[in-house]
Amino acid sequence: MSDDALKWRRIASEPGPELPLFQVRFDRMRHPRSEADFTRVVLEAPDWVTIVAITKDGDIVMVEQYRFGVEDLTLEPVGGIVDEGEESIEAAKRELLEETGFGEGQWRSLGVVQANPAIHNNLCHLWCATGVRRIQDQQLDSGEAIKVHLMSIDEVRNAIADGRFLHPLGQAAMSRVYKLWESDQQWGHR
Amino acid sequence: MSDDALKWRRIASEPGPELPLFQVRFDRMRHPRSEADFTRVVLEAPDWVTIVAITKDGDIVMVEQYRFGVEDLTLEPVGGIVDEGEESIEAAKRELLEETGFGEGQWRSLGVVQANPAIHNNLCHLWCATGVRRIQDQQLDSGEAIKVHLMSIDEVRNAIADGRFLHPLGQAAMSRVYKLWESDQQWGHR
Repeated sequence: MSDDALKWRRIASEPGPELPLFQVRFDRMRHPRSEADFTRVVLEAPDWVTIVAITKDGDIVMVEQYRFGVEDLTLEPVGGIVDEGEESIEAAKRELLEETGFGEGQWRSLGVVQANPAIHNNLCHLWCATGVRRIQDQQLDSGEAIKVHLMSIDEVRNAIADGRFLHPLGQAAMSRVYKLWESDQQWGHR
Repeated sequence: MSDDALKWRRIASEPGPELPLFQVRFDRMRHPRSEADFTRVVLEAPDWVTIVAITKDGDIVMVEQYRFGVEDLTLEPVGGIVDEGEESIEAAKRELLEETGFGEGQWRSLGVVQANPAIHNNLCHLWCATGVRRIQDQQLDSGEAIKVHLMSIDEVRNAIADGRFLHPLGQAAMSRVYKLWESDQQWGHR
């Protein structure tokens, strides 16, 4: 099967509703072989960042916040949205500082993942910062309420195991720095 | 800071547009401390599944398909949507069979991750099947075009490194079975 047997062709495209975090786009797509047309939805958004931040003492900087999708408090590494014209590392440093007050340290890229290739057009840039320290107070915007936790890797693994930390982008970043899965018991079940 | 300082309260909720894969919901949420209200968007969807399927010879069953979000071909483990009234393991077996023709084998849960706790209300159930074999032809629906690849773990790692396999849910499943990150060079950069 060649690429041509897999590649869909866009016949038409029109903007859908503008949602708080996404511009919806409807694409009319032609199947590569049957020539039938289907409407597909794309959620257009700026790139995202996720940051594994570690203090000089080896504590991991995690945030606890209410997540509106799952309607519950979660634990995650810091994440955020890359502003227009911003480099992802700048966004990562800005989000870490705003949400936790932590900064400085040595930064390295952990690569990227897609937000979700089936529906989102954006990437999530994964960053690791070691040797960070608290350099100011949190600077939360009026729509945020975030509690900072300094956790050991064992506490992070427990948060996965007991279902408090199930963010796939957070786990993607964290799994590039730490061995998260020790045994069947470590997987997040609810 | 207590839970009460983090937990938002839902003041009102109304359905938004129905998209091909999601029912949009708008929640009017009250900040836990400032008492200011904000509109948040939730994309309601059924749970998803992702399956790491491995043959008796140790080959990993991957699928190549056009993903409408990123407008490109991707490599991933098989994924899909849990039908109403279906258990996630049934959905996993059904999706693997339909998309690849592979079945049988020994199945075990790899736990769950959230689709994305900030915006989605659903979970993605991760499954591992070992000793699968091709037992029938693909049974694709008219809106699918999928090519099956049997890959070694080194080939999967290469697909991450060269940016063809960047699905965070696929990586979440795969990283519970295999060591994916050997070095800085293994991270998916584009």
